[in-house]
Amino acid sequence: MPNQSETNRYKIRRDKLRGIINSEEVDGLLVSTEKNVSYLTGFTGDSTWLLLTADSELLISDFRYVTQLEEECPGVDLYIRTSKTTLTEALVEKVAERGLKRLGIEGHSMTTEVFNVLDKALESVELASVCWKVEELRAVKDDHEIQEIREAVRLAEKGFAYLQAILTPQVTEQQLAYELEHAVRNFGGDELSFHPIIAVGDRSAMPHYRPGKLKIADSPILLVDWGAQTHSGYKSDLTRTMLTAAFPDPKFETVYRTVLEAQRLAIEAISPGVSCQKVDTVAREYIQNAGFGEYFDHGLGHGIGLDIHELPRFSQSSNAPLEAGMVVTVEPGIYLAGWGGVRIEDDVLVTECGCEVLSSVPKDWDSVRVSV
Amino acid sequence: MPNQSETNRYKIRRDKLRGIINSEEVDGLLVSTEKNVSYLTGFTGDSTWLLLTADSELLISDFRYVTQLEEECPGVDLYIRTSKTTLTEALVEKVAERGLKRLGIEGHSMTTEVFNVLDKALESVELASVCWKVEELRAVKDDHEIQEIREAVRLAEKGFAYLQAILTPQVTEQQLAYELEHAVRNFGGDELSFHPIIAVGDRSAMPHYRPGKLKIADSPILLVDWGAQTHSGYKSDLTRTMLTAAFPDPKFETVYRTVLEAQRLAIEAISPGVSCQKVDTVAREYIQNAGFGEYFDHGLGHGIGLDIHELPRFSQSSNAPLEAGMVVTVEPGIYLAGWGGVRIEDDVLVTECGCEVLSSVPKDWDSVRVSV
Repeated sequence: MPNQSETNRYKIRRDKLRGIINSEEVDGLLVSTEKNVSYLTGFTGDSTWLLLTADSELLISDFRYVTQLEEECPGVDLYIRTSKTTLTEALVEKVAERGLKRLGIEGHSMTTEVFNVLDKALESVELASVCWKVEELRAVKDDHEIQEIREAVRLAEKGFAYLQAILTPQVTEQQLAYELEHAVRNFGGDELSFHPIIAVGDRSAMPHYRPGKLKIADSPILLVDWGAQTHSGYKSDLTRTMLTAAFPDPKFETVYRTVLEAQRLAIEAISPGVSCQKVDTVAREYIQNAGFGEYFDHGLGHGIGLDIHELPRFSQSSNAPLEAGMVVTVEPGIYLAGWGGVRIEDDVLVTECGCEVLSSVPKDWDSVRVSV
Repeated sequence: MPNQSETNRYKIRRDKLRGIINSEEVDGLLVSTEKNVSYLTGFTGDSTWLLLTADSELLISDFRYVTQLEEECPGVDLYIRTSKTTLTEALVEKVAERGLKRLGIEGHSMTTEVFNVLDKALESVELASVCWKVEELRAVKDDHEIQEIREAVRLAEKGFAYLQAILTPQVTEQQLAYELEHAVRNFGGDELSFHPIIAVGDRSAMPHYRPGKLKIADSPILLVDWGAQTHSGYKSDLTRTMLTAAFPDPKFETVYRTVLEAQRLAIEAISPGVSCQKVDTVAREYIQNAGFGEYFDHGLGHGIGLDIHELPRFSQSSNAPLEAGMVVTVEPGIYLAGWGGVRIEDDVLVTECGCEVLSSVPKDWDSVRVSV
């Protein structure tokens, strides 16, 4: 059972959302995105929607979740449909009971098919797409969330130390991935926060590679992009690129130092009020000026929290200003297909007067060479 | 790199889909559901769409996946957008180039927001919701897929034997879940096919419980719902309910035998041409007649494959007939809140003349009591 302060936490979030609903000129909001329902109520299951109005809140679910809802969401009204009623039918009934005229829906996650069913069934109700509003709230973390993300970073770091300790020439990318997750769990985490990228040699140039059969001894380059998740669902996201043997190509050091300096400059630029585009530009221009611009074609980073990719986004198309309480990744990379890639990623909390780097795994050039 | 027979496999699937597109009177289909793209092309990444017409096929992706696409999908045309172009913008460009008049979209997975963007940008193109068509193809497995699911069942069974071997009075649900996944990986699997349900005591009455801090010694009832996933992404899904100590309440045996017989009767009813509703009814009526009808309020089962929940669905609202090559779960359950639950689940292949139960973990009453 949640304690009083936890129950209040969710109430505060719902009340903030009510303010936003008001300004969107809808008289109710259907929250159907799983993580948003969780953020607003504490419920950790699925297949459950939250119908929020100025003076009511209703969780619509089914019998599989009765006990869990009663335990996780005391004080929130429940409507438990039977298997004879679909979730959309149950919602239609409750919207009608409340006499809503204009209902906000989360168009960024609701499927076209569900929208069409609702639109037809709710003939006298106007459906208005109210996108990313809960995600905007989620972008700024409260104290509890920051504490959870700190713990997720700690778990990731302990897992990484373990991974380094078990490196041998014959261990494969896949084995390392499995042992890493097992270690994070033994240290008290729930799981890895995403499928880790553990890439040997030229595979490190594939930003979304999945661990395969390559062995550490197959190449000196080893890139590890990993994170841990706490039992409350909060995530960390880190990357380190290492050398597991001497690497005669001097280009590696150039690429590495370029990425590292780009990251340093970007982190230095992080402060409340600075636009996401600006931070992205700082790193991007540095890499461009070093002659590697075309080899860095993804955004510089993203928010983390209950999802591994949250708002804000560091990219050329995001003008959103940073706010204190946001937690973001900063992860420039240079990828040379067929040769290898370098990415360095840390998790950064935006503070009132600048930022705090939450992760502390060594990354200077002297720490790149690891023993196997 | 895929071999010739693998490349052909995907081509055969796309050609089948073309037949369906034809009958839907669209001159192209945008496949945007991740697993559907994978099923039709062999690509295992994300953020990638397939635009299929009668005489062309194009994968639209971004630079992160160039190498992977070239390796996994030889022979399929690629369009790699830069980060300056969104996925929807790239699609609009390619639809225009092809002069399509009526484009099918997967309305069951495309978000309302993406639909609205496409609808606006593709002014002269009619968008038609073509739902669940690839999923209908996926419901009937080819020989390769059946072989993969057999392997997923084998991995799950080996994992379960390991779990039984490490049962002790003090081990927690969570520790068992972690060790189970680690074992499945050691046996050659990719991961568990979903978050397992490992539930002690009255938690077994929560059909979607997640493993927590309860210990085996906390109650005699132990329910385990788990599955394994192969490296190709195919899944199994099994459930066993056990007694880890003597349980004086005779109701447990009644409930267990009722669920077991309901499952036996339902499996007996599985044959090509039989409707899903009919199979569901067989189990449901048996449980109702035994006096437990209100405690079994979920569908009897579902298809498995690349997703853990696929077509067909065993429920009262599904009239679809079974076809040879479908692989389904049969999982009746009786849940008594505050007391405990029993569910028994196996994976069943529909054959030309009946069915074959793919899983073989003991489940008769004599096997219920396990040593700890």
